Amino acid sequence: MSLSPSFEQLIQSLSKLPGVGRRSASRHALHLMQSRQDAENLLRSLSRALENLRPCSKCQNLCEDELCNICKDPKRQSEVVCVVERLADLQAFERSGAYRGAYFVLGGTLSPLDGIGPDQLQIPLLVSRCQNGEIQEVILATGSSAEGESTAHYLDHVLSKCGTKLSRLARGIPMGADLEYLDEHTLSRALEARTLL
Amino acid sequence: MSLSPSFEQLIQSLSKLPGVGRRSASRHALHLMQSRQDAENLLRSLSRALENLRPCSKCQNLCEDELCNICKDPKRQSEVVCVVERLADLQAFERSGAYRGAYFVLGGTLSPLDGIGPDQLQIPLLVSRCQNGEIQEVILATGSSAEGESTAHYLDHVLSKCGTKLSRLARGIPMGADLEYLDEHTLSRALEARTLL
Repeated sequence: MSLSPSFEQLIQSLSKLPGVGRRSASRHALHLMQSRQDAENLLRSLSRALENLRPCSKCQNLCEDELCNICKDPKRQSEVVCVVERLADLQAFERSGAYRGAYFVLGGTLSPLDGIGPDQLQIPLLVSRCQNGEIQEVILATGSSAEGESTAHYLDHVLSKCGTKLSRLARGIPMGADLEYLDEHTLSRALEARTLL
Repeated sequence: MSLSPSFEQLIQSLSKLPGVGRRSASRHALHLMQSRQDAENLLRSLSRALENLRPCSKCQNLCEDELCNICKDPKRQSEVVCVVERLADLQAFERSGAYRGAYFVLGGTLSPLDGIGPDQLQIPLLVSRCQNGEIQEVILATGSSAEGESTAHYLDHVLSKCGTKLSRLARGIPMGADLEYLDEHTLSRALEARTLL
């Protein structure tokens, strides 16, 4: 099909969004070209976001100033820090409303083969904040994938030397789960870590 | 959840894309802020598309010049015109590869209650091209919704006065359809319009 180059390039750029294939990208592109208002709004807000947003100097959450809204909030316990892999994980905790401490966003997991070591994840920053006593407790909330586990293991190793209290998210059966369909690892972890009533 | 205003606005703009809810928009926004390269590419291609793309003066397809690639193509029959509601319909025909004529994109359907009359759909342009003999045959390919049908009916009424050959897409059962699940209207149309073997 002979599309004009500008349109083709817009489709290509849109198909880089997560979960967006060529077909949806082409629907999005059509929509943007037919609703110019939406396209101009997107253009404006994207360029504003690229210009203004940067990582919080304390926790690497996205923010417009030196510190993010969470690090600035005096009502939150800044000495308890929940370490997550990605911004999306931070947002999931915030949606739950169950946590009132601070965060530290690694931006990924350790992966020496891909050249991602502690420095790439700003782990030295986290360590120095534990060393100088600014952080009292660290909740290791990396995922339960192999990479998430090994990153948590590494953090456990380095942070325990600082005398910081360390914990890991509980593992078990998720709410509303049908036992029949749970994988064997989750089931065996839940059995091992069963709680007395 | 306390998101920074630039980020919130980016989510709002992205959630205007078709089929994108708040959750996906927020995933897209996070992706864009974490892969700056993708965000900058999108910014560039969107601003380029907004600047360069405009409706073809003959058929209202999107293009970068006066005429679109289809109208410019000397190998296509420019005297046969397929009238579609939206650009997405034109692209669907192009994907099928079954059509070698030209198009006319209405940009919607007639809807007097919403103030959309023949002028808003550039129907006078189509009529004048039929009147001066530039168009010999018009294929009415508007949808089979009530609005699509009434738009086709209106076009049939005005264009038949110009002496243009008119046709409508065949109605019947789609390829691979399971008769059990087809709606009664499709079935009765398919029965009425049955073809002799």
